[in-house]
Amino acid sequence: MKLFFGIFQGDTAILNEEESNHFTKVLRGNEGDIIHITDGNGNLGKCEVTHVSKKIVEANVIQLQENFEQKKYYLHVAIAPTKTMERIEFFLEKATEIGIDEITFLQSFHSERKNIKIERLEKIVQSATKQSLKAYLPKLNDLTKFNDFIKKDLSDYKKCIAHCESDIERTPFNQILSKQPEKVLIMIGPEGDFSRDEIKAAYENGFNGISLGSQRFRTETAALQAVFATDWAFNHK
Amino acid sequence: MKLFFGIFQGDTAILNEEESNHFTKVLRGNEGDIIHITDGNGNLGKCEVTHVSKKIVEANVIQLQENFEQKKYYLHVAIAPTKTMERIEFFLEKATEIGIDEITFLQSFHSERKNIKIERLEKIVQSATKQSLKAYLPKLNDLTKFNDFIKKDLSDYKKCIAHCESDIERTPFNQILSKQPEKVLIMIGPEGDFSRDEIKAAYENGFNGISLGSQRFRTETAALQAVFATDWAFNHK
Repeated sequence: MKLFFGIFQGDTAILNEEESNHFTKVLRGNEGDIIHITDGNGNLGKCEVTHVSKKIVEANVIQLQENFEQKKYYLHVAIAPTKTMERIEFFLEKATEIGIDEITFLQSFHSERKNIKIERLEKIVQSATKQSLKAYLPKLNDLTKFNDFIKKDLSDYKKCIAHCESDIERTPFNQILSKQPEKVLIMIGPEGDFSRDEIKAAYENGFNGISLGSQRFRTETAALQAVFATDWAFNHK
Repeated sequence: MKLFFGIFQGDTAILNEEESNHFTKVLRGNEGDIIHITDGNGNLGKCEVTHVSKKIVEANVIQLQENFEQKKYYLHVAIAPTKTMERIEFFLEKATEIGIDEITFLQSFHSERKNIKIERLEKIVQSATKQSLKAYLPKLNDLTKFNDFIKKDLSDYKKCIAHCESDIERTPFNQILSKQPEKVLIMIGPEGDFSRDEIKAAYENGFNGISLGSQRFRTETAALQAVFATDWAFNHK
């Protein structure tokens, strides 16, 4: 099964320019070909290509599945990007494969990295979504200052901050998960962790302090563990 | 805390040549420095450097901890290497961080890759062990033919084979884990999965068929999930 990104307009689906180009130039696709198209919002269409031009591929929707393989949870990870972007890229690919809905990049006190190339990261997430045949495209939010982020209206989430300060009260992540909230938000700190002031500010803004176990993980490993643990809690009981 | 590999001889610890070189040339260490040394077999020594020569660094063991942070389980993952070695390398790093004891590389029917550079992979595992301050160095076994591997004497293990053939009876991995075996072995197939003949042969040799959920994961993602799930089952109950 080959999956493309596009939009649906009634019984017609249209690939975007990049996907059209990929279909015609790289895959040498033709009219009459049967392909699968997703809008990244849960819709998956089995389609027959009806029109191929330089920049637009059009297709007839033969069968449309809504909410294709929708998860039982909505997981939002807010993560301080690592010094080496390769580690964040790998995290994004794996998280997309396992199941994630939204990622915010955090600029926190101990962050070494002050900028990211969001377009490049979006391509990685798109590619992983197609590769793992998913109909939901995770949403990426650009670098946001920690203090701005925690003050946002995130009241529909079970809000969590993972940190390693063992003298500040924390709940094991699995206990948070066992309560089966529908929307979970977890903040993962940079190398060097969140500062104590940041942790305090997060608690004051309604975040639950959580621990991911006794080990100290690298940033991307902690984030991956949160993604795995959430999938595990909801899908392997 | 800076960690080095070495051997213990009574109250003396000796760094190997590479680590000695790293200590003297890269870190410009001196006699009198306090460092930590592990033999990779669970021993962790706090040591004072007593002698620095071109190829050998000797130290006095001030304090020795045996079975440092020993896990409650022994996990052996047998995995068909991916086409892109980068993916296996990332798996090795993450698995070492989370907790793994032994890795065997499998040559199976659908394997695209017929060779690996075990020395390079050993360096990655060593580096991850030092980075995450562990005193147990995971053991790597070179490429082994699937049919040879399943016939080995592995009777002290709870033996598992993960596969995606839904019409062949499988047990969810968490159910296998909930029985708390001390030694777990799990085989993870290549892109394209194990062949049906291989699965049959594994069952005949006492392997339990297991499933890691309804999703189809890439090889290295499935292996990572097995490592996370095992850690989670033993350490987060």
